[in-house]
Amino acid sequence: MVDRHPMWKDLGMDLETHDQLCAVLPTAFGDVYLSQENRPEGMAFWDMVVADVHGIRPAELIEEQKKGRKVFGTFCTYVPDEVVVACDGIVTGLCGGSQFWVPEGEKHLPADVCPLIKASLGARLGKTCPFFRIVDQIVGETTCDGKKKMYEIMAKDVPMHIMELPHMKRDVDVARFAQEIALFAKNVEEVTGNELTAEKLAEAIDIINNRRKALARVYETRKDPDTIPISGTDALLMMQIAFFDDPVRCAEMANKLADELEQRLVDKVSVFPAGTKRILLTGTPLAIPNWKLHHIIETSGAAIVCEENCTGTKFFTNLVDDSATTLEGQFQALAERYMKINCACFTPNEARIQEVIQLAKDYHVDGVINQNLKFCTTFKVEAPALEDALEEAGIPVLNIETDYTDNDAEQLRTRIGAFVEMLGE
Amino acid sequence: MVDRHPMWKDLGMDLETHDQLCAVLPTAFGDVYLSQENRPEGMAFWDMVVADVHGIRPAELIEEQKKGRKVFGTFCTYVPDEVVVACDGIVTGLCGGSQFWVPEGEKHLPADVCPLIKASLGARLGKTCPFFRIVDQIVGETTCDGKKKMYEIMAKDVPMHIMELPHMKRDVDVARFAQEIALFAKNVEEVTGNELTAEKLAEAIDIINNRRKALARVYETRKDPDTIPISGTDALLMMQIAFFDDPVRCAEMANKLADELEQRLVDKVSVFPAGTKRILLTGTPLAIPNWKLHHIIETSGAAIVCEENCTGTKFFTNLVDDSATTLEGQFQALAERYMKINCACFTPNEARIQEVIQLAKDYHVDGVINQNLKFCTTFKVEAPALEDALEEAGIPVLNIETDYTDNDAEQLRTRIGAFVEMLGE
Ligand code: SF4
Ligand code: SF4
Ligand code: SF4
Ligand code: SF4
Repeated sequence: MVDRHPMWKDLGMDLETHDQLCAVLPTAFGDVYLSQENRPEGMAFWDMVVADVHGIRPAELIEEQKKGRKVFGTFCTYVPDEVVVACDGIVTGLCGGSQFWVPEGEKHLPADVCPLIKASLGARLGKTCPFFRIVDQIVGETTCDGKKKMYEIMAKDVPMHIMELPHMKRDVDVARFAQEIALFAKNVEEVTGNELTAEKLAEAIDIINNRRKALARVYETRKDPDTIPISGTDALLMMQIAFFDDPVRCAEMANKLADELEQRLVDKVSVFPAGTKRILLTGTPLAIPNWKLHHIIETSGAAIVCEENCTGTKFFTNLVDDSATTLEGQFQALAERYMKINCACFTPNEARIQEVIQLAKDYHVDGVINQNLKFCTTFKVEAPALEDALEEAGIPVLNIETDYTDNDAEQLRTRIGAFVEMLGE
Repeated sequence: MVDRHPMWKDLGMDLETHDQLCAVLPTAFGDVYLSQENRPEGMAFWDMVVADVHGIRPAELIEEQKKGRKVFGTFCTYVPDEVVVACDGIVTGLCGGSQFWVPEGEKHLPADVCPLIKASLGARLGKTCPFFRIVDQIVGETTCDGKKKMYEIMAKDVPMHIMELPHMKRDVDVARFAQEIALFAKNVEEVTGNELTAEKLAEAIDIINNRRKALARVYETRKDPDTIPISGTDALLMMQIAFFDDPVRCAEMANKLADELEQRLVDKVSVFPAGTKRILLTGTPLAIPNWKLHHIIETSGAAIVCEENCTGTKFFTNLVDDSATTLEGQFQALAERYMKINCACFTPNEARIQEVIQLAKDYHVDGVINQNLKFCTTFKVEAPALEDALEEAGIPVLNIETDYTDNDAEQLRTRIGAFVEMLGE
């Protein structure tokens, strides 16, 4: 592998600390991923990316920056990539998914905020993630309390644009979000120096819709009630890297993988033995490299066949209507699509409950695991309502609260094992 | 005192549990309030109200309801009372300030949300607060995560209107809040059956502005650098009951108290010995009967001379501009005034920091205590920035995190005692 140290040094990274991360990631990845059997060949692409996750894509981004392109870091699936792509900018997801970054985050944030927030701030301020160093600007949003207020601290260290996300879903809110997208577009024009036109935005809408369709194709194969052509653990990796990768390549790779998985359905090639219990995982996002729960579940006699979260269906469900021909119409179409995401930051968020139940049926699941990152208030408060609705629909559910540490791994294994066993009865 | 049990029974309250609350409140009030010396005579009004806090005002509200008036329960200083008053409705604050209601709240909410939220839900669902039973409708708002999501649970039990509060303060946000006020006005018209007119709204703006002026007069007397005419503990009680009382009577009583306090300044009648350290308390709201921190501070050799919070200056600072003559103009004026409140739910909330520093100077304080209710993320995350700014301004600051229990009382007493002592050096 290319020695990335000179590049990381140029990025002003803390090399010594970062080397510690580099030392543990391959083992973690090997333990979780390479121990799996009969993986789709298409996963070789994502294995390669993750093997050099702080090298390959960062190097690409730096090359593009040299050509004058700008890189935007984002933290939320409500931020419309289309606007950035249309102005020839590049989007990279930034959510931190490793405990490695948490202690640095806790120097600036209370311990009792969610690990995703602490890891994200820690990755930037600790200078231990190249993506966080590369970005020309960060795009924040007013979603949950912790993230919203964390951005104030991060903004002292890096240029920041905040999008105001409504917290309700009336028509007036969709209009407000369309207005926010227009304001964001102005910001992207300024940062990139490129003017946004309806033609360019139409192209970008196509590009991102194609990514959605490709990812959806992969998920579609997971609905087969008899054959499980890909592990949840592998599907999750594809989704996690979708946030970092070029959207055209992402679609291409996902489509290739979908081809293979569709063939597997024909050939009845399953990565799990017949009768393995099928799980839908819902709840808070699983930022890379947070593979903890997937690994535990899939080594406890169950298979995850669907993730209803932001590193899952929320990322690709619903296309943007591409019929508008003016920027105004396109902003409205974007707002309408994005406002269909059912995040717990919204009140009420009843549609999420209906969606989970529908997905549970579509993916023929035996049970639902509702995952909550510690101190994520919004998802936690709506958990009982989700639980009640699932029970009423006759779908067993297990609520799990966890963070990025391994302290609770054994306890989780016990609880999940018992849940899976119960599903078999 | 009148036996209120028949009234409480009519309200569907849990009499047995409520009797437990009634049994402890007088002692708590006596310990904190009646032990103070040389209190202003004007406090007799508030002593009387609190002695029968679940009786006098509830009985009045029920009388008004019999005449056809509607009662609106609110939880946030951003909700514009003016609109309700203009439609001949009645507003009553509902925030729960007692540990008594927390266990019931925890049956429906995670333990790790702020006690104000848990107590508020507990008071409603436990049927142990007459105000929560009397209200015809509750007005919620999209402020912090916990409150926003708690309303979803409460809404299953009582009619609820949610106002969407922007989380930023650009012109576009003020316009959006003006739009929200218009939507709220529609709701109030429906609930009360009364049409809102510019004339009636102008009158209501006057009424509420007069309440603001009266409360501000009381606070003004606390700025005197030599004489402290009223304890913080007493001033807090006046503020807490301002949320429940009729606004005209509230202004009348506050003006009377201000007369007395102004005379005290002339006569140099202080409730604390000369040289007592002057404290500004900032942070999260102190809902009735949360007198814990005031009592500890004022029995630790210091005096609170200003509360920069929602049960303090935030409630009355800035008048509504009364020059508009159309509803649209009035909604805009209301939005402009309310959006000047510097709640940590907003990002950024830099103006709060400037305000605290200004108030610290105006009230001649020796130190600032920043109070945070446990699990209040928004205020907690901005605490270090406040601390830095105060230190830069040469104003000592102590951060306190606490809840409604008494478990930490001794520890707080030690820390606060040390802080006050340090101020004397
Ligand atoms: S869970 Fe909500 S706040 Fe978090 S990334 Fe998803 S949409 Fe955004
Ligand atoms: S998991 Fe919850 S608390 Fe954490 S960033 Fe997402 S919405 Fe916020
Ligand atoms: S602290 Fe903020 S959310 Fe709470 S009552 Fe005050 S303005 Fe409303
Ligand atoms: S104190 Fe904080 S967490 Fe509690 S209701 Fe107010 S803003 Fe929300």
